[in-house]
Amino acid sequence: MGKGEVEFIGEVTEVDGELSKIVLTEKACPGLLRIEEHSHLYILYWFHKRDTPKHRNVFKVIPRRHGETAYRGVFASHSPSRPNPIGLTLVELVSVEGCALTVKGLDAFEGSPVVDIKPRSSRDPS
Amino acid sequence: MGKGEVEFIGEVTEVDGELSKIVLTEKACPGLLRIEEHSHLYILYWFHKRDTPKHRNVFKVIPRRHGETAYRGVFASHSPSRPNPIGLTLVELVSVEGCALTVKGLDAFEGSPVVDIKPRSSRDPS
Repeated sequence: MGKGEVEFIGEVTEVDGELSKIVLTEKACPGLLRIEEHSHLYILYWFHKRDTPKHRNVFKVIPRRHGETAYRGVFASHSPSRPNPIGLTLVELVSVEGCALTVKGLDAFEGSPVVDIKPRSSRDPS
Repeated sequence: MGKGEVEFIGEVTEVDGELSKIVLTEKACPGLLRIEEHSHLYILYWFHKRDTPKHRNVFKVIPRRHGETAYRGVFASHSPSRPNPIGLTLVELVSVEGCALTVKGLDAFEGSPVVDIKPRSSRDPS
């Protein structure tokens, strides 16, 4: 199997309770045009603290935080330790200002690189 | 901004109408444990045909297939030409057999590398 390269498009610069601020690079910023037409967005971000061989070799986890006691596969879990350290959260778009978005419900740490932003598809449950 | 590396965990090996087959590598296969407990999964895959400097430098698109005539930012669209060629689809899990999943609703081409699989979160709309 091959490999691919991602170039980060921005960063989670502030987390304040349920609200998070994402700032895009100057290069990526034009990609935000008309994003305010969407109420909900998927944020794909990088679990930068888990981007190590050890964490990327986790294939089974026990999600104790969720009260579980038995193993499940990493692809049946939201564990941040996983082969490709990509997080995915569906958030509510609160506001857009220049290259910055404020979103509600993002569970990424401050400093997390952002990989992609996508609108919730009209085919998805709403 | 930095970069990250993804290692593909499998591939879309067959597409037959609405059904697609995903086969994971031997290494990644244990990550499927108990995946059958989830009815819906997010599939993150690689737009391998768009992994070129040209397609990765698209920041504004006109989604003509969707009847649009004006530009929107790539992050306000599902365009496969985007800075990081990652596709995201919410699919229904039909069956699991060894290292192979059959899913319904995946819009990836045959041969697309798979980057990650995640269960739909209980926090997401259902």
